[in-house]
Amino acid sequence: MSTLTFGVQAQSVNPTQTQVKVRGFQMTVDEPADLGGTDVGANPVEYLLASLSGCLNVVAHLVAKEMNIALRGIALDLEGELDPAKFMGKPTSGRAGFISVKVTIHPDCDADQATLQNWLQAVESRCPVSDNIGNATPVHIALG
Amino acid sequence: MSTLTFGVQAQSVNPTQTQVKVRGFQMTVDEPADLGGTDVGANPVEYLLASLSGCLNVVAHLVAKEMNIALRGIALDLEGELDPAKFMGKPTSGRAGFISVKVTIHPDCDADQATLQNWLQAVESRCPVSDNIGNATPVHIALG
Repeated sequence: MSTLTFGVQAQSVNPTQTQVKVRGFQMTVDEPADLGGTDVGANPVEYLLASLSGCLNVVAHLVAKEMNIALRGIALDLEGELDPAKFMGKPTSGRAGFISVKVTIHPDCDADQATLQNWLQAVESRCPVSDNIGNATPVHIALG
Repeated sequence: MSTLTFGVQAQSVNPTQTQVKVRGFQMTVDEPADLGGTDVGANPVEYLLASLSGCLNVVAHLVAKEMNIALRGIALDLEGELDPAKFMGKPTSGRAGFISVKVTIHPDCDADQATLQNWLQAVESRCPVSDNIGNATPVHIALG
């Protein structure tokens, strides 16, 4: 199977606000006021969680269909915790990003718990964004 | 320094479309028609790239300020390639997510190349989303 390429173009509006273009869509990323931003959009790490939620939804329904689970919908709560020390340039042995990400999925369906645990395991392993967060992915950043 | 917690709540609208709430903001994630979606928003992996672009912008300006670089703005091009085989449940030894992510940053400033390379290195190492993609991050998914 051939690979698929996805891309976005972004432009700073100010030091915290970024306007992102992807196909016909626009996204605005910013920081809240208490992180020094102009607060006109969700912040980068909130976008990361949104990305994961959207990916889990797609895979949740795909796998449910394969398993003949009548999935009427899902709700998701996502949370991540980070220490801003490294980001802010303070001395730290910690990492810059989320220490871990917690997701709770509430499926609206009548399947039993054992079936749902199998479903959940398949969803997690086949979700592209879960993979990119859960496992190391080379990020190549160059000056243009 | 104490940690910061970020969270989002999401709800499936249909098998590919997800509505995400974060503080006062709403985001719509979907898939394009050629991936079986209803195409009313960027897709999950495009959100992942948007997240990275927004994070790099914030850190780019923060580090520039510390280094006394007069950064007027930045433009970014981001691209990722993935093999949909695992996502689609086909036999594969490949991973589900992006194989790698390529970012090109175009800084609008007058600093010399050596200064910009130092700047770029600091930006990459201090960017939370670069860290979460570049390095493994535990993702805990549970049924609620």
